[in-house]
Amino acid sequence: MSQNIKNKITDLLERVRTRRPVVHAITNWVTGGDVANALQALGARPVLAVSSEESAEITARADALLLNLGTPDADRIAAMIRSGRRANELGLPLVFDPVGAGASKFREEACGRILRELQLTVIRGNRAEIAFLAGRGGQLRGIDAVGAPDDLEEAVQMLSGQTGAAVLASGEKDLLAYGDRMLTRTGGHPLMPWVTGTGCMLSAVIAAFAAAADDPLVAAAAGISFFKLAGQRAGERSAGPGTFKAALLDCLHILTPDDLRAAADLEG
Amino acid sequence: MSQNIKNKITDLLERVRTRRPVVHAITNWVTGGDVANALQALGARPVLAVSSEESAEITARADALLLNLGTPDADRIAAMIRSGRRANELGLPLVFDPVGAGASKFREEACGRILRELQLTVIRGNRAEIAFLAGRGGQLRGIDAVGAPDDLEEAVQMLSGQTGAAVLASGEKDLLAYGDRMLTRTGGHPLMPWVTGTGCMLSAVIAAFAAAADDPLVAAAAGISFFKLAGQRAGERSAGPGTFKAALLDCLHILTPDDLRAAADLEG
Amino acid sequence: MSQNIKNKITDLLERVRTRRPVVHAITNWVTGGDVANALQALGARPVLAVSSEESAEITARADALLLNLGTPDADRIAAMIRSGRRANELGLPLVFDPVGAGASKFREEACGRILRELQLTVIRGNRAEIAFLAGRGGQLRGIDAVGAPDDLEEAVQMLSGQTGAAVLASGEKDLLAYGDRMLTRTGGHPLMPWVTGTGCMLSAVIAAFAAAADDPLVAAAAGISFFKLAGQRAGERSAGPGTFKAALLDCLHILTPDDLRAAADLEG
Repeated sequence: MSQNIKNKITDLLERVRTRRPVVHAITNWVTGGDVANALQALGARPVLAVSSEESAEITARADALLLNLGTPDADRIAAMIRSGRRANELGLPLVFDPVGAGASKFREEACGRILRELQLTVIRGNRAEIAFLAGRGGQLRGIDAVGAPDDLEEAVQMLSGQTGAAVLASGEKDLLAYGDRMLTRTGGHPLMPWVTGTGCMLSAVIAAFAAAADDPLVAAAAGISFFKLAGQRAGERSAGPGTFKAALLDCLHILTPDDLRAAADLEG
Repeated sequence: MSQNIKNKITDLLERVRTRRPVVHAITNWVTGGDVANALQALGARPVLAVSSEESAEITARADALLLNLGTPDADRIAAMIRSGRRANELGLPLVFDPVGAGASKFREEACGRILRELQLTVIRGNRAEIAFLAGRGGQLRGIDAVGAPDDLEEAVQMLSGQTGAAVLASGEKDLLAYGDRMLTRTGGHPLMPWVTGTGCMLSAVIAAFAAAADDPLVAAAAGISFFKLAGQRAGERSAGPGTFKAALLDCLHILTPDDLRAAADLEG
Repeated sequence: MSQNIKNKITDLLERVRTRRPVVHAITNWVTGGDVANALQALGARPVLAVSSEESAEITARADALLLNLGTPDADRIAAMIRSGRRANELGLPLVFDPVGAGASKFREEACGRILRELQLTVIRGNRAEIAFLAGRGGQLRGIDAVGAPDDLEEAVQMLSGQTGAAVLASGEKDLLAYGDRMLTRTGGHPLMPWVTGTGCMLSAVIAAFAAAADDPLVAAAAGISFFKLAGQRAGERSAGPGTFKAALLDCLHILTPDDLRAAADLEG
């Protein structure tokens, strides 16, 4: 990784800790607590209002907006669109996590509206979700991906070109594209696939970084670098998926910009 | 416990870990994260879609369906019925957890519909819930049972006869009936009653086992045996209800078929 | 703190552990699991029914009612009003946690209805929320307060006078007023602000104490004293916000009336 982007990433963590951005998360109720805890532990301020009756008003007082497609219903999608428009009007960073994209017609249509009607800053999904959004029809089984096209790299770049957003397909190997720039990263901890909510937490962390960044690529790169480092350290402190999640929140809180500088190793 | 059923139970754990069944859980939002984490830690793949707009479609791609009556509302009950019918059409295992059955007319009516309109594979509740379903009017205080008829054994058998499902009343002493077969088990850990979500997690674990089993009795016996073993081991690693839940998820992940073989001690 | 109130507080903890009151919590879905776990760990019995179709019936079988304004929608507000009226009819203690009061017009109107239409026993919020309710317009950023009037003491007393409820503004320094009585407390642990759900858990603990108390001031004083003690002890056992929450639940369970007697140090 170039020294340049490494410096930007560590500066960004420092800025998040100082500014404590308000992140409005319209997210699913399964991992909503994890998302709130991750943001709070990191140093951001979570607000999880999801009702269409108040969502746009809450967005207007936030520093970034996160839309997470898990456990969708009609009102939550309406809230996402209203809040997303408000975020676009106000120029706020807008992160989209297409949980289970393609798992139902309802989610497919919701994805279509979000991609058409909103200007996204970062899209973060697993390989199958990103492939689905890029029109490649990745297959979804459960909440994690068990099939994705070999040409994922092309899909990530294509989706970034289509949407103007930075696109991150996370997994054992992370692929991140923004315009013609591309970064990859390997690593993480073997326990992570056995813990729910890690993807949702990663997207929330990226939203917090996006609130303090000018460049969507740097925000996503900082988020994935910091989150994976926290995951590695958490893995060293835990005995299974349950103690891992508690340790992950600990690490999101205690890791410093210097820890991040020493460990970040994105390539590209 | 007969050597025969012990072998079936340990084989089943192996099969769950290999096949990684998708379990669609229509469950309450209080313990939904616990349910998802338990399934993921065990090695299954949780999907927690609850909206009637997509639930049947999600069920059609799953290997088992779990209906949990906690925090019900009209749309969630509609989703349960739709998904339950789809599961029945496709021959998928269908597990019902009647949380708070009898706590309100709304839940009573929902239970009535579920029992009448759906063919259930396993019913798992606490003693009061099972007694209520069997028409014995167990009294409910809070989420755990504080009154159940002395003739619980008869209630469990009667409910199995009425529904054609394997019926498990869990508690300090577990009672499991399927047709004219009956198993009992004692054990567990003293911390378990002070932790929310353990009943919901047990039902989810049973759904994962049911996805890999031919015999509902074996699925329920495997689920309760494995879960109680995990609870005992978690109790040895924890200092109270908070560290217990993390340790429980750890143990659901790390315990092996050999551990289960060494420990299983169902009687009947 | 006078020896008199100290004795009342420790007696109250003993009574909660013996009676195991049922606390009906109509609360938000982000920290609902934390609330249920806190009540269960303490020794109370949580029920988290939120649908207007069953809420009043659930309240009628409970020993106390908790209304938490987080993640509100129209049906949840309707359930709060129905359950609140039922609690008032039956003379049940009613605790209100105005999460995010003032964050949107929708919450502002909901607060107005709750204050006008219901007789509250205890109101527990952070400084900005309490200031907002008292008409002082505290500013809200995220879920925690970053601005509150200097005259918070006056606001707490004024809100108590307006509502007839004991009012607790919790934070680094806790202010508690009931009629012309006023108590303050300092302490807590530096990790607490980095953990979501601690305020919601505190309000739930107060509701459990209120179910066993005659005096709203004693209930709130017992709740804050016990919760802060648990927080201090949890801090000594944890390495960050994730392990803190697990340790907090442990401590809510294992701390005894004698521990509380040795530590309580309210002033006033």
